[in-house]
Amino acid sequence: MNDQSANPLGIPVPVSWTQDGLAVRLLDQTLLPVEERFLRLETVEEVAEAISSLRVRGAPAIGIAAAMGLAVVTQRRLGETGATQWEAAFREDALLLRSTRPTAVNLAWAIDRLEGVFYLSAPGGPRAQVESLVREATAIALEDKEMCRRIGEFGLALLPPEGCGILTHCNAGALATGGMGTALAPVYAAHARGSLVRLFADETRPLLQGARLTAWEAGRAGIKTTVITDSMAGALMQRGEIDLVIVGADRVAANGDVANKIGTYGLAVLARHHGLPFFVALPRSTFDLSTPEGGLIPIEERTPEEVGVLAGTPLIPGGTRVWNPAFDVTPAHLVTAFITDGGVIRPPFGPAISHLFPGGPGEDGAETLNLE
Amino acid sequence: MNDQSANPLGIPVPVSWTQDGLAVRLLDQTLLPVEERFLRLETVEEVAEAISSLRVRGAPAIGIAAAMGLAVVTQRRLGETGATQWEAAFREDALLLRSTRPTAVNLAWAIDRLEGVFYLSAPGGPRAQVESLVREATAIALEDKEMCRRIGEFGLALLPPEGCGILTHCNAGALATGGMGTALAPVYAAHARGSLVRLFADETRPLLQGARLTAWEAGRAGIKTTVITDSMAGALMQRGEIDLVIVGADRVAANGDVANKIGTYGLAVLARHHGLPFFVALPRSTFDLSTPEGGLIPIEERTPEEVGVLAGTPLIPGGTRVWNPAFDVTPAHLVTAFITDGGVIRPPFGPAISHLFPGGPGEDGAETLNLE
Repeated sequence: MNDQSANPLGIPVPVSWTQDGLAVRLLDQTLLPVEERFLRLETVEEVAEAISSLRVRGAPAIGIAAAMGLAVVTQRRLGETGATQWEAAFREDALLLRSTRPTAVNLAWAIDRLEGVFYLSAPGGPRAQVESLVREATAIALEDKEMCRRIGEFGLALLPPEGCGILTHCNAGALATGGMGTALAPVYAAHARGSLVRLFADETRPLLQGARLTAWEAGRAGIKTTVITDSMAGALMQRGEIDLVIVGADRVAANGDVANKIGTYGLAVLARHHGLPFFVALPRSTFDLSTPEGGLIPIEERTPEEVGVLAGTPLIPGGTRVWNPAFDVTPAHLVTAFITDGGVIRPPFGPAISHLFPGGPGEDGAETLNLE
Repeated sequence: MNDQSANPLGIPVPVSWTQDGLAVRLLDQTLLPVEERFLRLETVEEVAEAISSLRVRGAPAIGIAAAMGLAVVTQRRLGETGATQWEAAFREDALLLRSTRPTAVNLAWAIDRLEGVFYLSAPGGPRAQVESLVREATAIALEDKEMCRRIGEFGLALLPPEGCGILTHCNAGALATGGMGTALAPVYAAHARGSLVRLFADETRPLLQGARLTAWEAGRAGIKTTVITDSMAGALMQRGEIDLVIVGADRVAANGDVANKIGTYGLAVLARHHGLPFFVALPRSTFDLSTPEGGLIPIEERTPEEVGVLAGTPLIPGGTRVWNPAFDVTPAHLVTAFITDGGVIRPPFGPAISHLFPGGPGEDGAETLNLE
């Protein structure tokens, strides 16, 4: 097991193997920025709790945590149980982890991959199965890291070499992935190139991922970062401080409509009003061809308490109605380009997006996209 | 002294005389919505502290608090001091109150009025002077109440009789004035008429005046109110929930550019994008003819702690930069109309606004405005 806790950006990797290879080392993101505490997770219950309590968040990071967790838990059971119990226990652990966040696509996909290698390597016996689980979990993490690197590289070409002011929303950075993030990858790449990047982070109410997480990791990486309330983005653009906006995405429909953290849509409208580019950075797996347009993407509405209470303090009068959608949908016509691990996609998005998928030019169809 | 603690809306009046007429009764707005506590202010130090600590806020309410405070404090000194000390003490109290919030226009204006009647009534002796101070402070409160009523009446004509969804920002309501508010006055008037009003209140980061104060007072008045984070306004408009936006103003330049609570500009851009009316409600005294355009309005930048700390809990990593402007400027071309106590002003704003002031058709020039 290779240790992945080091990161060239100086940002702790949110999920990795422990040094002894016997547990998952997980940064408890619920404590940031007040406390930087790493958890050692050894049991399936501990891994499941960490995912469901949002100690790790961001679809790619959740997938990695589940995969590493399942590998570690299975490894610790070596020699403990008989042959039948061995397989039943694995199946039970996989089921528990799969159910922790039913909507996170990468979670089910990562468990699927580990189940596949577990059964394929069964003829070699338990030890061979554990080795294949560890290899697969490591591969998932490394692939994600590479995906981030490619998004950073493709995005870099869109940023002015001399530097610029970049506004982002929520956290689509290293803390959400196995690498340097999606929306933040081009920012880190520009910083590494020596460009003078001024990053502005919307605090991102209600859960403050921008204030708590983006400011923390970008600061660690040495990026000049300024936090604003979500309501200040317009005034910042009006003053000419912003050259472009980059955000991540939770799901993109076949026509290019983008579901992302609530507040993204307002930023896109402001960017258009000020003539600024609005980029969406994402792995190709975030495109969902089965959803023709954004109006069909289900939008999760969360509890009033997320808006109405902070750190135990009530912010609104008891009994007041709260509307708390977790995401909004930005229509494709407000998106300047998608920055993917396969290249940059420009409008018209529909045909380019459909090329990304089977039936199109194949998995690595980036070359045939409407690229630059 | 007439008791003004009753309000037909069911909202406690933020500033009034106590029942015995010997003190100022002031709602401590810093404790809302958790606690509804009224203070009895008897000394000039107590009144000054209440204003500078934002226990009372909103320019009109501050003016009323200072006026009533000066009257009460002077009244309590009757019979205590000799003739020379009497005048010196009054002058000192006035100076102290004037300095509590140097930027609040109504504060200086209210103190000016009380100083005027104090010296004019001097020949009648201290008791006559106190009577004139109480009369003047009461007049200031009543005039403000009437101003709000007129804004409500003129604004009502702009709202569809069958009801509508209204979005507002910050608190420009009863708690900020001596009456039913500026931006909220048309909302209360529509509710009184029996229209089905659905009010949406931006929480208004960083100080949460929308969540804490607007939701509280509108709820008291029986208005169906929903709190959203500032970042949700776009999604709400996209879903067709909003028919119009109404906000207050801190200062309006001669060309109609509007300085108001940070976030107002973003709302105006979103309203334009969705083809929704964007109304600004204000007393005529908020127009500042001496400032030709919005770019010349000084924008107060406040402490990083307002954004970075809430109820003692740090929300951002230590050392992170924060930009915290208290206001932004909405260009006049994004304003559909101004709702004033003198009538509704439609574009082109420049000529209509200049008519409001001396040299134009006189103080009550409403009839000559570009009204409807």
